[in-house]
Amino acid sequence: MSSLADSVEIAAEFRLAMRALAGAVSVLTIGQGADRVGFTATSVSSFSMEPPRISAFVNKNSSSWPVLQRCRAFAVNVLGEGQEMIAERFAGRGGTRGADRFAGAEWVTAATGTPLLADALVAIDCELEEAIERHTHAILIGDVRAVRLGGRDVDPLLYWHGRYRGLR
Amino acid sequence: MSSLADSVEIAAEFRLAMRALAGAVSVLTIGQGADRVGFTATSVSSFSMEPPRISAFVNKNSSSWPVLQRCRAFAVNVLGEGQEMIAERFAGRGGTRGADRFAGAEWVTAATGTPLLADALVAIDCELEEAIERHTHAILIGDVRAVRLGGRDVDPLLYWHGRYRGLR
Repeated sequence: MSSLADSVEIAAEFRLAMRALAGAVSVLTIGQGADRVGFTATSVSSFSMEPPRISAFVNKNSSSWPVLQRCRAFAVNVLGEGQEMIAERFAGRGGTRGADRFAGAEWVTAATGTPLLADALVAIDCELEEAIERHTHAILIGDVRAVRLGGRDVDPLLYWHGRYRGLR
Repeated sequence: MSSLADSVEIAAEFRLAMRALAGAVSVLTIGQGADRVGFTATSVSSFSMEPPRISAFVNKNSSSWPVLQRCRAFAVNVLGEGQEMIAERFAGRGGTRGADRFAGAEWVTAATGTPLLADALVAIDCELEEAIERHTHAILIGDVRAVRLGGRDVDPLLYWHGRYRGLR
């Protein structure tokens, strides 16, 4: 039987361990016009190829969650090197919130109405097939409606041990 | 309304797009003794911090899936640079299957009985809280029971555009 002290120690070690798990940096965008929201995520992963489905996690305490439940659509914008400022803005650094996070970058409107970052490494427009709520988060399953492949020859933006990194 | 031709094109573009999503390389291990199985994955992500939960996806056509359903436990072993051969073996290159994939590396036994890679960047021992089946895959939610932080000062192993890469 594990004690409360054990649980606290495991939680602290898990937090440290997850800093060692490198992740590609994406921005999830949701909504339209003044109702646009978005956040930076490293939890994006392809889920299935047939049918094409992508997954990401959202914190149910975030301001994006109610908008996502209403719009039932989202886009994944995979960031490249040099887009650290966009990542920081969508992570809420400097207190930027809601539609203000979209300032300073160029966006195009996808078929679902969701904004796509014009010069993302790749951008994927999805309808929300399902949001599976567990603990503090929801697992989003995105039904891929369109893919915008970036034309630029640029390396991905990565996050590891609390810092932005690039590929060697 | 989208046509079949549209669907085929989206599937092909999605496959290309997901090659541009860089991922940290982990090996998931399941079972004990001769009943050990495992596979290479880039779908591992922290899921929630409180409570500590980690997630990964498993293909329901894989040989790991029935073992996982029986054992209800798994470990995530995050690989570092120089462990490409372990990644390849657990990806099934060369036709290596089942317990044979564990040859040529050192393993320690976790509290749940699952093998942990001795020199993983970090290794996380989990009980399977839930496997959520959707399409061809299952989303695993792991209840973190123990964390083994690697003592080595090594960079993570990454996978991007079909090749192993390191951090710059």
